[in-house]
Amino acid sequence: MKCGVDIGGQSVKIGFIDNKKLMYSYSIKTNNDTLFDDIFKSIKEYINKNNIKIDFIGFGIPGNVKNNYIYKMPNIGIGDIDLNKISKQYFNLPINSSNDANCAALGEALNGKYKSSYFITLGTGVGGGYVYDNKLVEGNTCSAAEIGHLFIDYKHNYQCTCGLKGCLETVASSVGIIRLAKEYKNQYKTNIDFDNISAKSVFDNAKLGDELGLFVLNYVSKSLALAIRNICVTVDPECIYIGGGVSACGNILIDRIKYYMNEVGFYASKDVVIKLAGLGNDAGMIGASLL
Amino acid sequence: MKCGVDIGGQSVKIGFIDNKKLMYSYSIKTNNDTLFDDIFKSIKEYINKNNIKIDFIGFGIPGNVKNNYIYKMPNIGIGDIDLNKISKQYFNLPINSSNDANCAALGEALNGKYKSSYFITLGTGVGGGYVYDNKLVEGNTCSAAEIGHLFIDYKHNYQCTCGLKGCLETVASSVGIIRLAKEYKNQYKTNIDFDNISAKSVFDNAKLGDELGLFVLNYVSKSLALAIRNICVTVDPECIYIGGGVSACGNILIDRIKYYMNEVGFYASKDVVIKLAGLGNDAGMIGASLL
Repeated sequence: MKCGVDIGGQSVKIGFIDNKKLMYSYSIKTNNDTLFDDIFKSIKEYINKNNIKIDFIGFGIPGNVKNNYIYKMPNIGIGDIDLNKISKQYFNLPINSSNDANCAALGEALNGKYKSSYFITLGTGVGGGYVYDNKLVEGNTCSAAEIGHLFIDYKHNYQCTCGLKGCLETVASSVGIIRLAKEYKNQYKTNIDFDNISAKSVFDNAKLGDELGLFVLNYVSKSLALAIRNICVTVDPECIYIGGGVSACGNILIDRIKYYMNEVGFYASKDVVIKLAGLGNDAGMIGASLL
Repeated sequence: MKCGVDIGGQSVKIGFIDNKKLMYSYSIKTNNDTLFDDIFKSIKEYINKNNIKIDFIGFGIPGNVKNNYIYKMPNIGIGDIDLNKISKQYFNLPINSSNDANCAALGEALNGKYKSSYFITLGTGVGGGYVYDNKLVEGNTCSAAEIGHLFIDYKHNYQCTCGLKGCLETVASSVGIIRLAKEYKNQYKTNIDFDNISAKSVFDNAKLGDELGLFVLNYVSKSLALAIRNICVTVDPECIYIGGGVSACGNILIDRIKYYMNEVGFYASKDVVIKLAGLGNDAGMIGASLL
């Protein structure tokens, strides 16, 4: 059995995976001062109690990591961590690690039937992972699939957290979706409750035919279609997976993206398979265990 | 020794390569009705006459090819050709084939020191090739690195030959460069001779400080920087090679691209190595021989 650890800002998901299937999982709270000691102690306790044998531990890291050295985890506020060193205090096992979006991409890919795929995750930000020939492509600076920073939205040219403007993330993340709804709220009729707005509520209203909701859904979908066109003319994968919290709105988003691919897709690759990621919140753990 | 064949609209370059180095080469005229018979007969004659032993023939095809079946060569006007079948009439040797820009990319990559690189060729059109872990990535529909069709130029949104608008090719190809010069000729002082204009003459004038020439050079360089930013956030290669006829203007183009990478590049990858392709017209033959 392999162990996959998916570290998040609020909680750490720990799973035990056999033959690419999640057998057991649980989560612990993210304490930034004792994070990795908590994780290793907890794994030791769990496998002893449940009589589980593991031969590998993989980590999905919300930040920059290379050769098991974590440079920075911005949302947790810690960094400069040598995972190999800490691991040896608890286990005599091989470990590996990658960015959390990469892990989710690998999990989706190895549970699907496509050898080359591109994963786009739509959450507070927009990230992704590129799997080629069933292996992760991490890139020279570990920033392959920083796909939220494709230059896409020349129309608004909103400031992105990365310092650039017009990045995909500025319109296709949950933050971007809410901003678009606010920016256009006087131009379209709407029932959106702006006191309790979320990306989900914008798209839920779109499903009910809300004019503003539909405008935002279409704008985001067209931006994603442009991004997918750019991904396809760059690497031409077999499949694009769309995951992350924003994708929970379901097939309405996939359908609109496919519609716009007809308009803005490159002829040779505009019929690329585009589908919702299937593993949901488990993708990170499963992918980490397969690193 | 390996044989590499680079098919062009006017001539076919045939080379004999040993340990990645071009030892002998010559070219024959492109006759569209007898193209492959001409090529195979000529190779047979040449190796017999010069007592050369070959164990492989690779082909760079100006068009769509998959599994040695050529679908279309638009500039030569022929297609639906089974290369395996024709080859067997002349040789009992393994063969392989790929798009011509892919071959050039592979030639550059394997003669360089970077395991992952992206090649951009600027000619009448804009093409490219992506080499990962020293191997070509051709893509699911053989349209990986159709990098001329990245969506980049939202400002003019010129019609592209592919049917879309605003593709990189509409501004960074020789055709695009000439169009830009014509479009802005009343807005900048210039000594460009519009009766004999070429991409080279535009950039040659830029080198002399011509205002219009510099405007076009900067516009093209910034467009290429945006394209490279998109390539980097998608696959994060170690090196970007710039080749093709337009790149003959030399380091002035590379320097301007690097300048704009500081402005529009993604922070993690904006220092990616960007350099002129070194093999020139030999890259296609050399790469084809290494397929």
